[in-house]
Amino acid sequence: MLGKEKNIHTFIGCDSGYGQAGIVLFGAPFDGTTSFRPGTRFASAAMRAESFGLETFSPYLNRDLEDIAAFDAGDLDFPFGNSARVLDAIESAAATILGDGKIPCMIGGEHLVTLGAVRAAAAKYSDLHIIHFDAHADLRDDYIGEKLSHATVMRRCWELVGDGRIHQFGIRSGERSEFDWGARHVSTRRFDFEGLGSTVKALKGRPVYFTLDLDVLDPSIFPGTGTPEAGGVTFKELLSAVQALEGLDIVGFDVNELSPQYDLSGASTATACKILRELLLIVSARSSA
Amino acid sequence: MLGKEKNIHTFIGCDSGYGQAGIVLFGAPFDGTTSFRPGTRFASAAMRAESFGLETFSPYLNRDLEDIAAFDAGDLDFPFGNSARVLDAIESAAATILGDGKIPCMIGGEHLVTLGAVRAAAAKYSDLHIIHFDAHADLRDDYIGEKLSHATVMRRCWELVGDGRIHQFGIRSGERSEFDWGARHVSTRRFDFEGLGSTVKALKGRPVYFTLDLDVLDPSIFPGTGTPEAGGVTFKELLSAVQALEGLDIVGFDVNELSPQYDLSGASTATACKILRELLLIVSARSSA
Amino acid sequence: MLGKEKNIHTFIGCDSGYGQAGIVLFGAPFDGTTSFRPGTRFASAAMRAESFGLETFSPYLNRDLEDIAAFDAGDLDFPFGNSARVLDAIESAAATILGDGKIPCMIGGEHLVTLGAVRAAAAKYSDLHIIHFDAHADLRDDYIGEKLSHATVMRRCWELVGDGRIHQFGIRSGERSEFDWGARHVSTRRFDFEGLGSTVKALKGRPVYFTLDLDVLDPSIFPGTGTPEAGGVTFKELLSAVQALEGLDIVGFDVNELSPQYDLSGASTATACKILRELLLIVSARSSA
Amino acid sequence: MLGKEKNIHTFIGCDSGYGQAGIVLFGAPFDGTTSFRPGTRFASAAMRAESFGLETFSPYLNRDLEDIAAFDAGDLDFPFGNSARVLDAIESAAATILGDGKIPCMIGGEHLVTLGAVRAAAAKYSDLHIIHFDAHADLRDDYIGEKLSHATVMRRCWELVGDGRIHQFGIRSGERSEFDWGARHVSTRRFDFEGLGSTVKALKGRPVYFTLDLDVLDPSIFPGTGTPEAGGVTFKELLSAVQALEGLDIVGFDVNELSPQYDLSGASTATACKILRELLLIVSARSSA
Amino acid sequence: MLGKEKNIHTFIGCDSGYGQAGIVLFGAPFDGTTSFRPGTRFASAAMRAESFGLETFSPYLNRDLEDIAAFDAGDLDFPFGNSARVLDAIESAAATILGDGKIPCMIGGEHLVTLGAVRAAAAKYSDLHIIHFDAHADLRDDYIGEKLSHATVMRRCWELVGDGRIHQFGIRSGERSEFDWGARHVSTRRFDFEGLGSTVKALKGRPVYFTLDLDVLDPSIFPGTGTPEAGGVTFKELLSAVQALEGLDIVGFDVNELSPQYDLSGASTATACKILRELLLIVSARSSA
Amino acid sequence: MLGKEKNIHTFIGCDSGYGQAGIVLFGAPFDGTTSFRPGTRFASAAMRAESFGLETFSPYLNRDLEDIAAFDAGDLDFPFGNSARVLDAIESAAATILGDGKIPCMIGGEHLVTLGAVRAAAAKYSDLHIIHFDAHADLRDDYIGEKLSHATVMRRCWELVGDGRIHQFGIRSGERSEFDWGARHVSTRRFDFEGLGSTVKALKGRPVYFTLDLDVLDPSIFPGTGTPEAGGVTFKELLSAVQALEGLDIVGFDVNELSPQYDLSGASTATACKILRELLLIVSARSSA
Repeated sequence: MLGKEKNIHTFIGCDSGYGQAGIVLFGAPFDGTTSFRPGTRFASAAMRAESFGLETFSPYLNRDLEDIAAFDAGDLDFPFGNSARVLDAIESAAATILGDGKIPCMIGGEHLVTLGAVRAAAAKYSDLHIIHFDAHADLRDDYIGEKLSHATVMRRCWELVGDGRIHQFGIRSGERSEFDWGARHVSTRRFDFEGLGSTVKALKGRPVYFTLDLDVLDPSIFPGTGTPEAGGVTFKELLSAVQALEGLDIVGFDVNELSPQYDLSGASTATACKILRELLLIVSARSSA
Repeated sequence: MLGKEKNIHTFIGCDSGYGQAGIVLFGAPFDGTTSFRPGTRFASAAMRAESFGLETFSPYLNRDLEDIAAFDAGDLDFPFGNSARVLDAIESAAATILGDGKIPCMIGGEHLVTLGAVRAAAAKYSDLHIIHFDAHADLRDDYIGEKLSHATVMRRCWELVGDGRIHQFGIRSGERSEFDWGARHVSTRRFDFEGLGSTVKALKGRPVYFTLDLDVLDPSIFPGTGTPEAGGVTFKELLSAVQALEGLDIVGFDVNELSPQYDLSGASTATACKILRELLLIVSARSSA
Repeated sequence: MLGKEKNIHTFIGCDSGYGQAGIVLFGAPFDGTTSFRPGTRFASAAMRAESFGLETFSPYLNRDLEDIAAFDAGDLDFPFGNSARVLDAIESAAATILGDGKIPCMIGGEHLVTLGAVRAAAAKYSDLHIIHFDAHADLRDDYIGEKLSHATVMRRCWELVGDGRIHQFGIRSGERSEFDWGARHVSTRRFDFEGLGSTVKALKGRPVYFTLDLDVLDPSIFPGTGTPEAGGVTFKELLSAVQALEGLDIVGFDVNELSPQYDLSGASTATACKILRELLLIVSARSSA
Repeated sequence: MLGKEKNIHTFIGCDSGYGQAGIVLFGAPFDGTTSFRPGTRFASAAMRAESFGLETFSPYLNRDLEDIAAFDAGDLDFPFGNSARVLDAIESAAATILGDGKIPCMIGGEHLVTLGAVRAAAAKYSDLHIIHFDAHADLRDDYIGEKLSHATVMRRCWELVGDGRIHQFGIRSGERSEFDWGARHVSTRRFDFEGLGSTVKALKGRPVYFTLDLDVLDPSIFPGTGTPEAGGVTFKELLSAVQALEGLDIVGFDVNELSPQYDLSGASTATACKILRELLLIVSARSSA
Repeated sequence: MLGKEKNIHTFIGCDSGYGQAGIVLFGAPFDGTTSFRPGTRFASAAMRAESFGLETFSPYLNRDLEDIAAFDAGDLDFPFGNSARVLDAIESAAATILGDGKIPCMIGGEHLVTLGAVRAAAAKYSDLHIIHFDAHADLRDDYIGEKLSHATVMRRCWELVGDGRIHQFGIRSGERSEFDWGARHVSTRRFDFEGLGSTVKALKGRPVYFTLDLDVLDPSIFPGTGTPEAGGVTFKELLSAVQALEGLDIVGFDVNELSPQYDLSGASTATACKILRELLLIVSARSSA
Repeated sequence: MLGKEKNIHTFIGCDSGYGQAGIVLFGAPFDGTTSFRPGTRFASAAMRAESFGLETFSPYLNRDLEDIAAFDAGDLDFPFGNSARVLDAIESAAATILGDGKIPCMIGGEHLVTLGAVRAAAAKYSDLHIIHFDAHADLRDDYIGEKLSHATVMRRCWELVGDGRIHQFGIRSGERSEFDWGARHVSTRRFDFEGLGSTVKALKGRPVYFTLDLDVLDPSIFPGTGTPEAGGVTFKELLSAVQALEGLDIVGFDVNELSPQYDLSGASTATACKILRELLLIVSARSSA
């Protein structure tokens, strides 16, 4: 259940009260379907703790988190071992936030958590589009027989929003069959962000859910993830891509797949925090506009 | 599905063919309900690889793995995110082995995997007893609403075998209510192995399933586990306790809760391997008797 | 400044309000004079996070943290680089707690933090005694010219309480001159806890400050510290020694010198948490008596 | 001795039988002359285990390992401490594979292992050329008096193939004397791959051995190596360079100098696996042409 | 006190005697004001040990450390917990070196150590300029009330050299107020090295102190630092920038903020060593001209 | 070649000049035959650096390193990949020390290094005995065909000293054939130090070489070694056993098999340092008697 009381330990600069907040953060510390190396359950706690190595001010945007109103609701409590109930809990939290006219910002967890938030967003916005940055296509129909999996999450989202509504960028891994299926149902840009500008232009004014699988970044800058995949985008490329989203009507968003313990240097966590700071500043610009 | 073809990479000395083997090892790399720190899924692979730092000869028992017949079937494939199906797969593998007149030896995984093997053993042996070494009582009825959990596994086993059939040793952690419930339904020795001798004597001739949660060991010698709990038994105490099982009719057994990545020194994995070598020598002495 | 508002992230079971609490925890994340390997600043945060791997129930004492009233005030904010101001902040926090008729429980930090709390306790109790468990004597007069240092802390405490008031146990490291000086001014038991029973008997009814440098433990169970020193006491020995304190009039206490990052397994942090749980149960038994 | 029986644990997608295979992989887990930080002996085992985080399909080449025939023979057994005997074992394995009309693909180990394979290739192909990607020139005549060393390996290869037959790219470290000697006997491109295209064109139709010291990569993406040297090529640059080899008559190849334990994130191992997948697809395209 | 006797363990190639040396290295292992993650105290020792993985020859410059005269004086001894006395010790060492007509090269430590060296340089050169590469502006007036802090160091330097004398490059983090203050008093280039060429041209012939906070590098190549900040410069960009300094009259310089233990791969330390080798070759070219 | 000039970085308290010294330390950083996990080459450097976390005073013996005369000659330089030449270098260094009437104290390295020192000692003392503490018997005749190996070292030593001259304690691992062979040629005490007292008594007045494979310690206190083997002795048991050697005529000794990088906590290195301090105090008591 979503907490609405004020927390002591928040992501840096997200110390507004729930009522005033335009954006509501919450953690979804779930990695129950991770097939390779688990650990994304630790991401939200690590990001809160390490965010104090960041400044609230962005020298890129010349804006400051102190000027926006965001509330950090802490982490949801999950019954490990039951993916369906976990997704219900996420959907419920996101629906509460959306119902209160605010924007949910979820810190995963593995990528499956996105399905819970997208369910809530799709329930509110019938014409929802999804922008998806990722190394992996995540378009399988099942994974060893399971329909609910990090590897199937965009397929499940497609069942909710339909053909032509999912816009993937940076994809550099998948089964041949995923790329084949994807070619008929979603829009997939391999390796980089080419075409993002025209996608953004086309989606202006429509409700957009943005899901950022941080492993779209190259493992040189983001080794702290379960399935590092070389050949990813640089931090500066991702930063530009995120800045390109400004002006979109983002109704919900998430960052996911940080596994902080695989990067003892803390650089992956710090990078996730920095991207989240920029996202908060960009999305709130819109929400307060 | 259990593989019966010969493997190249086995636990040291377990290179018999399936047909000749009296004991059949298999890995159950599942940690899907782990509530704190996951990673036991890596235990069986780590133990196979690191077992080659061991000798096959035990200077404690003056016996050698080269003189026994054990087959290593490799790891089961699991659908992460669905505990019920995982348990079905384990039950099926254990039932196959038991049906072939052999003794299953399972390498966990988290402790929940024991339930699958106990189901198969209880189906074959109506009067099954369970000897359980552990730091934790594992007697809750549910964990955040889930019936299938590492924290409930012995409660689920009790539903299969009934009052007075579960014999716990070394327990040093649990909720007050677990200890209260346990006092009425199972036999629980706190902190050490006192009374094991008389339990063994009383169970002579009856079918026994032995489950060893390695965190019964003190974290000084076994830090590589998800929930280290100080005050455990020493390696020598555990070795003596395991030797005390000799002569029992052990129809199945498992070692579980090694999380190798939390102990970069490899000492936890090496310790798990050494205990497993001793167990194989002790159980096979019986099975070949 | 000590926070009195309720916190979301507390040490397990310490969720009382400030007003009701008999014991008030606070973190003193300072390691500024650490001469060898820093990192104790991370101890209090790690202990809060990892305490949820513990149960609130102690099977040793058959008591439960849920039955006592403790408040976790979070961490003090420190100006790194200025030991004198740090000690002032600690003294002020401890004085506030003592002034409100409560017992301060400080989580260090390096051992120097003890001086701040002892100053407050000595100001309130003119006949204060100190019981000190440690690997190191900490009796130097200065360390490379500095009077305020982890290596001088008990010498500074002695200046406050005087001859015969400091009772050291478990000491196994120091300069020859420290042992020589100590023989004239304090009571030092090398290597173990022999004589603790008679010390406790002699101190019954007098105000006692208890400081636990966790490196008194053997590094086998407590490697997560800046200066591991082999030959320490076992966890069970420390547990017994802590239980032996029951009945004393402990007016303040601390645990210090955990450096969680040096023990990636988490066992050191878990061990510190477990000892703190026992201490809370023992001290609160007295405070509520 | 090279094993020809089918293995259970193979590099992903290399599950052909020996007879059908066009390419035969084997591991050469040797690091006995490593002067700085050992550990490349663990590379082949790590790559097999971690390769299952990869897909068999390459979205770069639109080809799939499932469409080629490669056999993974496992690792050779080595007598540590005797470099000469180790090289003999490698030469023998490579000669067997070459004698059976197949292409050897060796996973090092330190770079000295290349000498064994080049001996076998040079014995079969009198006009052998070598393409060598590396951070280090490896052209010393001896290293502290030893002729057989990772630091002398290309000098020893030169003794087999002669002037003008070794083509180095990416070199950014060496003694002054190595560069001086190299200028007279081999072709050395410093820092990058400029000129690779014309080299490939010139070598069309001739037998080429390709040796890839993975530390040619920048340590940002490949920190898991014994001697990280900043200023290396990016993954994308290496990928392009590898793709540029397509069409060459590669008669043998190796990847070496991964030390997986120095990169706990696993990113270095994953990167090595990905490059090997691309190499297998490129070389097999030729071998099956 | 600065040691002038010859040391056995030196940074590679810095084995000149004190008298002959044009450049004198010393370590300043201080991290006492580090607010986030300490550990820079280990940098100089790690760099000396790991420098032997480097060659003395630079293939970039075609120069060799064997051709220059540098002396490594070892590390200064510091009283931890007293920033003022630490700075005095550094100032004294740097003044000795400057007084002997040599160039001090300091290996930090946290960035505050720069203040000690700048004090000595400013005392000798009244018209001193400072070139400052960093991720962080370090321009606060105080940090939690402390004037002496890694976060205030350039503000303190400004008090010594005055307006327009500090030239910052690569800055990508700071409070809004730091950037505002900086705009009036120092020259700050955000994110990269644009304009460095014209700065160098303008400073020709004037005494320059060069301070290199290594976290100006992207954490992909330099994760071993206390506060990793994504979006930094690449190694090649830094190498070019350092080469651009050639010809300046550098009267003192330092490299700081390496925390080797946060990068277990050793790549950060190796990178620091390589940059220092290039700096020594560039600065000594000038000093011997 | 052994250096006789004074070093700056020594093991703590070993700062005598060569001429005055009764004991001469040197490092033998060789791990070239290590079959499992290399890394002992880093032991001597780590021990020197970490020894400064120790005091020079032993509260066990009430003696101080400051009162003895020991010289630390630094590390020998080795040609990796050639075990025979490495042993020659060790033998030569030990012979020099013995020839100067001093006692060699070697810090390994893997256990094979002992052979070099024993050769020198056996050449000087025809009736040499060896006391050997170890987890492993090290009595094989060859290891994968190699005569020079860590696993054969005591067999090679036996060839020098003959039957009944090697006295092993603490052995808990070996092949059956090693124990069988050993029963006829050496004295082997399994698991502990029982009988050490009478052995010491019997050897009084005879020349004794003492070799301490630190893995005789339990991995709980000494995980930093290549082949951790549970069931070892405690630190206190080893300390007592070492104290029991007092009065023997120890003509040379070594400590070996520390692999510091496998124990990130540093506790293994600290433990090795502490045992070495005690050994130095005990052996020097004899040498100065």
